[in-house]
Amino acid sequence: MSSKRVVELFYDVVSPYSWLAFEVMCRYRTVWNIDLKLRPAFLGGVMQASGNKPPGLVPNKFAFMNNDLRRLAKYFNVPLQTPADPFEAMFNKGSLTAMRFVQAVQAKETGGDQQVEKVSRELWKRIWSEDKDITEPASLAEAAQRAGLSSSQIEEVQKLCTTQDIKDKLKSATQAAMSYGSFGFPMLVCHIDGKTEMFFGSDRFELMAHCLGEKWLGPQPQTSSAKL
Amino acid sequence: MSSKRVVELFYDVVSPYSWLAFEVMCRYRTVWNIDLKLRPAFLGGVMQASGNKPPGLVPNKFAFMNNDLRRLAKYFNVPLQTPADPFEAMFNKGSLTAMRFVQAVQAKETGGDQQVEKVSRELWKRIWSEDKDITEPASLAEAAQRAGLSSSQIEEVQKLCTTQDIKDKLKSATQAAMSYGSFGFPMLVCHIDGKTEMFFGSDRFELMAHCLGEKWLGPQPQTSSAKL
Repeated sequence: MSSKRVVELFYDVVSPYSWLAFEVMCRYRTVWNIDLKLRPAFLGGVMQASGNKPPGLVPNKFAFMNNDLRRLAKYFNVPLQTPADPFEAMFNKGSLTAMRFVQAVQAKETGGDQQVEKVSRELWKRIWSEDKDITEPASLAEAAQRAGLSSSQIEEVQKLCTTQDIKDKLKSATQAAMSYGSFGFPMLVCHIDGKTEMFFGSDRFELMAHCLGEKWLGPQPQTSSAKL
Repeated sequence: MSSKRVVELFYDVVSPYSWLAFEVMCRYRTVWNIDLKLRPAFLGGVMQASGNKPPGLVPNKFAFMNNDLRRLAKYFNVPLQTPADPFEAMFNKGSLTAMRFVQAVQAKETGGDQQVEKVSRELWKRIWSEDKDITEPASLAEAAQRAGLSSSQIEEVQKLCTTQDIKDKLKSATQAAMSYGSFGFPMLVCHIDGKTEMFFGSDRFELMAHCLGEKWLGPQPQTSSAKL
């Protein structure tokens, strides 16, 4: 049982590369001998604390990332589409409320993280696929409803997510990310034989698999396995 | 013959991730149906023209990159080691003279690019493995000698590399990189059915292989193939 290696995934739904990493890791949690821990955190806090700047501020990098995300979304089979105004969605509107909401879902959930997984995915679908808001209470409620939460559960989560306890939980997750040396998301932290190996981005899975002693079968392992 | 797809690799020996991409592509040029074009260029010029900043200026990113390079070097089987003072080597000393030297080698070489490949590798070995200078004429001569150039060839190249023609050739390669939307190196440009697909970094080979209709066999394809 406990021989499974713990892999923590720090993410924020404002980050499209985090979505790719999230889907890949959710697929591999049943393929590799790992215990995946979803760590919803606040990317804005990490960027500020690390002194890092969003890569999209350099015009050529922004253009590359758009194209890169389009190609990767197809290859990873994730329905990712850049919103019409990514700067407005990412920097002006942001994800603080949304990530507190995910923290509240996590705080309420017992015996697994299916709700956290589903709510996170629905939030990503809104911002990074359907170009919809993720800041208004109604938007969060809709995402939670699609994720299968009942009306009473949603009400509870919405009350909870404005409490100091949940604000502190999000801060604490963000600080945990910083303690691993974060400067952005997605960040994967593998606990291997008492040591930690940190990987940044959604492009280190092959190397991470190598460090974990597992096999990388591409971003769609079930499809690949079926082909072998 | 001409059914081979052209893949251009833009690189600068000041960049460690470029070394990884260079070795991988030199391995795959005999595995994939591609015509690899080595495009030595000047990273400093690209950073300035694109308004990009070196990633190592963010402390957490610098620490991650050190660790990332150490792990990747092992996994890629490239003898890369960070110099004692990477800022001095990369930013104060830089690579302008070295890349003019490589351009001069390329200008002199006919019927292939074996000398360009070998000289580039020897320069990387100096700066990114042995922590040695790559700015002095004697340093460049030593690299060229190890790469198998004769004394007279080295003398010719050294005369050539201060000429306006070679300075212009390096500028022109750097401008070509910019015209593909560069903001750093390594940059790979694949010419596929009359279109170009640009990939930045040494972590898009799997996706690039997919776009080229080729198979990614990991960073050491000969070893992998032997195992299959």
